[in-house]
Amino acid sequence: MEFFPPALERMTEQFARLPGVGYKTAQRLAFFMLSLPVEEVEAFSQAMLHAKRTIALCPFCQNLTEGDGPCPICADKKRDENVICVVADPKDVIALERSREFRGRYHVLHGVISPMNHVGPDDLYIKSLIERVSKEEIQEVIMATNPDTEGEATAMYLSRLLKPFGVRVTRLAYGVPVGGHLEYADDATLMRALEGRREM
Amino acid sequence: MEFFPPALERMTEQFARLPGVGYKTAQRLAFFMLSLPVEEVEAFSQAMLHAKRTIALCPFCQNLTEGDGPCPICADKKRDENVICVVADPKDVIALERSREFRGRYHVLHGVISPMNHVGPDDLYIKSLIERVSKEEIQEVIMATNPDTEGEATAMYLSRLLKPFGVRVTRLAYGVPVGGHLEYADDATLMRALEGRREM
Repeated sequence: MEFFPPALERMTEQFARLPGVGYKTAQRLAFFMLSLPVEEVEAFSQAMLHAKRTIALCPFCQNLTEGDGPCPICADKKRDENVICVVADPKDVIALERSREFRGRYHVLHGVISPMNHVGPDDLYIKSLIERVSKEEIQEVIMATNPDTEGEATAMYLSRLLKPFGVRVTRLAYGVPVGGHLEYADDATLMRALEGRREM
Repeated sequence: MEFFPPALERMTEQFARLPGVGYKTAQRLAFFMLSLPVEEVEAFSQAMLHAKRTIALCPFCQNLTEGDGPCPICADKKRDENVICVVADPKDVIALERSREFRGRYHVLHGVISPMNHVGPDDLYIKSLIERVSKEEIQEVIMATNPDTEGEATAMYLSRLLKPFGVRVTRLAYGVPVGGHLEYADDATLMRALEGRREM
């Protein structure tokens, strides 16, 4: 690669650091940046720096927010203060908010317990969750981690930690997805859907 | 998406402008940037701005180079001044240099004639090629555009433009790729390989 200018090489290397971007893709992205007017490259660069410099974690729920104060959800007096929904990721907050079903507050763990990836309880925002449950008037904690092995294990772990505080710990219902087809549902989901069947 | 901080949203939009990057991928890249230390985001941003601000086109061959002078290849006195190899893209220069076979100079068109994509001869660096051929002591111009329809048509077009200058215009040989398998070669390639067969 000795015939490309070093500055281009360095930009390519930076793009190649992005997750899921290999060297060839990074090169394509670098060429694309070169093809843009300089003001647009500056705008791109500014957007990255501004986001990185202003976005912090909400001191209450650990969700992403701009500035040092509480996030818009924690600051919203109309939300139910007595229910916390625990999720692994800020994206899960978006998904749950889209359903408009939940009116309580959140707690973002920023990951799940995963011995395979060397993520233990101390790497997650668990301590601050315990603190909230012990200090605030929390009645229910809904475990909304993913319904996969690690999400399950994390929910179980937290459930055992939280129950001694006399709080109700619940888990999202399992079942067939709305609008789905039974023939494509896997065995485990069907089993859980039958187990959890309700009177009509 | 109203629950993500606007700064994150703006960074995501910038990533989504990159070729081949959809909204979901852009979001993943934005989260990745947030997870980096601020110095690394600054380094990324600097690499982009520096490349954009310093990389220019070589005034002779139009290849990418740093600064205003000629590129390293055009500046190299040991290269053959009488042969120009015409390519569509700076990446093609790299590919040809890797073969170590060519010792002349290049001319980068920055594209091929493509009526489908509204690219005409005036959108490419063709005028500067004609100028070089008319002013310099050029004996041969090798057409090394891609062996596809548009590369072919561009080579044909340039060949007709250049021949009146009394210069020899050649085209890369067609044939089966070295290390390839005959059974996977397409009909057109095999036909060309037979046509171009040589004494052993």
